Amino acid sequence: MDWEELFADRVEAIGVSDLDGLFALIEKPEVISFAAGVPCASSYPIDRIKAVVDHTFATDIVQALGYGADRGWSPLREWVAEHVGTVEGLSAGKDNILITSGSLHAFDLISKILISPGDTVLVEEPSYLAAIQTLRSYQAQIVSIPMDDGGVDVGRMEGILNVLKRSRIKPKFFYTISSFQNPTGITLSGERRPRLAELLRSHRVVLVEDNTYGELYFEGEPLPSVSSYMPEGAIYMGTFSKIFAPGVRLGWAVAHPQVIDKMAIGMQCTDQCPNSFTQRIVYEYARRGWIGEQVSRATKIYKRKRDLMLKALKKHLPSEADWTVPRGGFFLWVRLPKDVDTYTMFKPAVEEELVAYAAGSSFYPDRRRTSELRLAYSQVQPELIEEGISRLGRAIEKHRTRPSP
Amino acid sequence: MDWEELFADRVEAIGVSDLDGLFALIEKPEVISFAAGVPCASSYPIDRIKAVVDHTFATDIVQALGYGADRGWSPLREWVAEHVGTVEGLSAGKDNILITSGSLHAFDLISKILISPGDTVLVEEPSYLAAIQTLRSYQAQIVSIPMDDGGVDVGRMEGILNVLKRSRIKPKFFYTISSFQNPTGITLSGERRPRLAELLRSHRVVLVEDNTYGELYFEGEPLPSVSSYMPEGAIYMGTFSKIFAPGVRLGWAVAHPQVIDKMAIGMQCTDQCPNSFTQRIVYEYARRGWIGEQVSRATKIYKRKRDLMLKALKKHLPSEADWTVPRGGFFLWVRLPKDVDTYTMFKPAVEEELVAYAAGSSFYPDRRRTSELRLAYSQVQPELIEEGISRLGRAIEKHRTRPSP
Repeated sequence: MDWEELFADRVEAIGVSDLDGLFALIEKPEVISFAAGVPCASSYPIDRIKAVVDHTFATDIVQALGYGADRGWSPLREWVAEHVGTVEGLSAGKDNILITSGSLHAFDLISKILISPGDTVLVEEPSYLAAIQTLRSYQAQIVSIPMDDGGVDVGRMEGILNVLKRSRIKPKFFYTISSFQNPTGITLSGERRPRLAELLRSHRVVLVEDNTYGELYFEGEPLPSVSSYMPEGAIYMGTFSKIFAPGVRLGWAVAHPQVIDKMAIGMQCTDQCPNSFTQRIVYEYARRGWIGEQVSRATKIYKRKRDLMLKALKKHLPSEADWTVPRGGFFLWVRLPKDVDTYTMFKPAVEEELVAYAAGSSFYPDRRRTSELRLAYSQVQPELIEEGISRLGRAIEKHRTRPSP
Repeated sequence: MDWEELFADRVEAIGVSDLDGLFALIEKPEVISFAAGVPCASSYPIDRIKAVVDHTFATDIVQALGYGADRGWSPLREWVAEHVGTVEGLSAGKDNILITSGSLHAFDLISKILISPGDTVLVEEPSYLAAIQTLRSYQAQIVSIPMDDGGVDVGRMEGILNVLKRSRIKPKFFYTISSFQNPTGITLSGERRPRLAELLRSHRVVLVEDNTYGELYFEGEPLPSVSSYMPEGAIYMGTFSKIFAPGVRLGWAVAHPQVIDKMAIGMQCTDQCPNSFTQRIVYEYARRGWIGEQVSRATKIYKRKRDLMLKALKKHLPSEADWTVPRGGFFLWVRLPKDVDTYTMFKPAVEEELVAYAAGSSFYPDRRRTSELRLAYSQVQPELIEEGISRLGRAIEKHRTRPSP
């Protein structure tokens, strides 16, 4: 069978993930990796998780082993509705909630119900790699909106929307990670949030707000979600991966019931229903108030790691380099001198200096070469951070003095 | 926001599931429901499941709570490769295996990588409702192949393939549930299996074989999978939902590594990775040999229920009715006298006679009204089966004497 000739058009549109070979390279234990955006395993309170698993066996195990409702288990939907009301100021009831197999699954369902091939979607530049890939899988035209340290540039966005309007292009939605963005760590400023909502509303563009990292803030108070300024036109996404654990594969979407109904039909065509077993575990854990306590413990760990990384960057990176200072989340974004290509530097950095990062090009829809890179401080052990960054410094130095191939 | 005008074309193509309202109606405890194809909960050996959960906590809990590989956890992939070798005669290694969030998720990924809008896909008539919906979500042209009691009619299929060929239509794949089919309970005969493989090979049509129910056989020996006659052009799907429990949301696909690679990219755009926690539970359970023991115990339960149902049907259904006699699985298919419309009969059957079934129309891609219905004997308690079928008999009688609306 000649499979290549059988694959659907969208397969070519998706392309191959740059991270594919990357993860194979960095599996060696001697590599210090700032590549993957994963939670710190030492933040998992194993005894408490064991307690809620035992509780599920004692109370509800037969249902936990069976199929569930496509929209998710009702008690968990109710908990999420209340939770987003408290932490995001979103007024939501159970009918506004869909539980998904992680927030990327929510993004897949949103794309499924909104994007026809050729439709235009706006994203931040740079943006989350897997979201870009998902948009490609629906053959969206991706238009990037520039950011600065205050988040997406609302003025330039207005200009872009007007240009699109003159070409009669009506974007389906704008995808934003509004706080502690992946990959940059940047947070959309409080002042821009209502302006962004107003702009989207006036152009009748849906907001898709991904707040994966929003609860992990190190200082100050969290900002109101952009969705809270335009709830009628927003789809909001969250996940248990960062406030509990990713292995349970559970996230959520908050939207108008009309949207949730369509997403539920999408669920019937993908996973059928979210995981019954882990939904009960997470619900009981949340019901006991343990999520808040875990978040507060984890946040302290992440803040300490961020601080160690900021200090090490100052010490070991060339003076022309600069970087974002995230006020929460997992990532910071480093801008190196223009003569550095972080894509070609990657392999020697891993193989010779034993340090890994995520090259900036992965996060641009046009895959452009850049002198930028993403560092995740979330997972790496604190005592390895300075050593890892000093290795990165050496890798940069070597790269800059090496003759171009 | 006017959401209706924003939805993608595929949303209209999917339409609304007939089962939507159905499940709301049948939730009342006094209804005896033969509607849903779900496993018998009393077949779950809770103590053993608890033991493997405890084992996971004792050995591997941090990894169980983390992200996993997009293709699935290596030990489980290896177990599945060996398992399909043993039970299906498929020669597979780890690289041929993708773990998914249930077999429908495997079907979604297969559709994602193979179907461009307008592509033609062949299915059995009738076929699995959720698979039909998934095909609609990819805007496939669905062509149905008639079945008889020996399974899909290979001769008529050849005729249809030749007609399509003259119109230069090249179907992407043929989707079959080869054993104890959903919804009919019919098994493709041993004699037809190599003929079907030969026909598909000669027309260069991919086989997508769903063997969700194949291990649950009541008598005789299981037949070799159709895939084993054409491994180079087949994608085979299985699931832990029926041999372990659906709540863990785990299934698998077996295919050429080139196909698995593309499906893994699809995984990166949907669930990111299958559930790390439940993969470890299922693996340890399987490794201890407990799946085989559970299947053998569950099969005895299902056989007994099937026999009770066959007996009750003979006693309570009109003499002009007939039905399939499944040799395994969850379902049988009832053909009632032509003046019965099982779709309009449904509501009064549930509300007045307190019995539920799945109307035949749900399983036809053209949603035609039929006098057929699907009965699942898998879940209902044995002592309720005769009472349920006698209620069905009364509902039919009432329906036939009631003046048409």
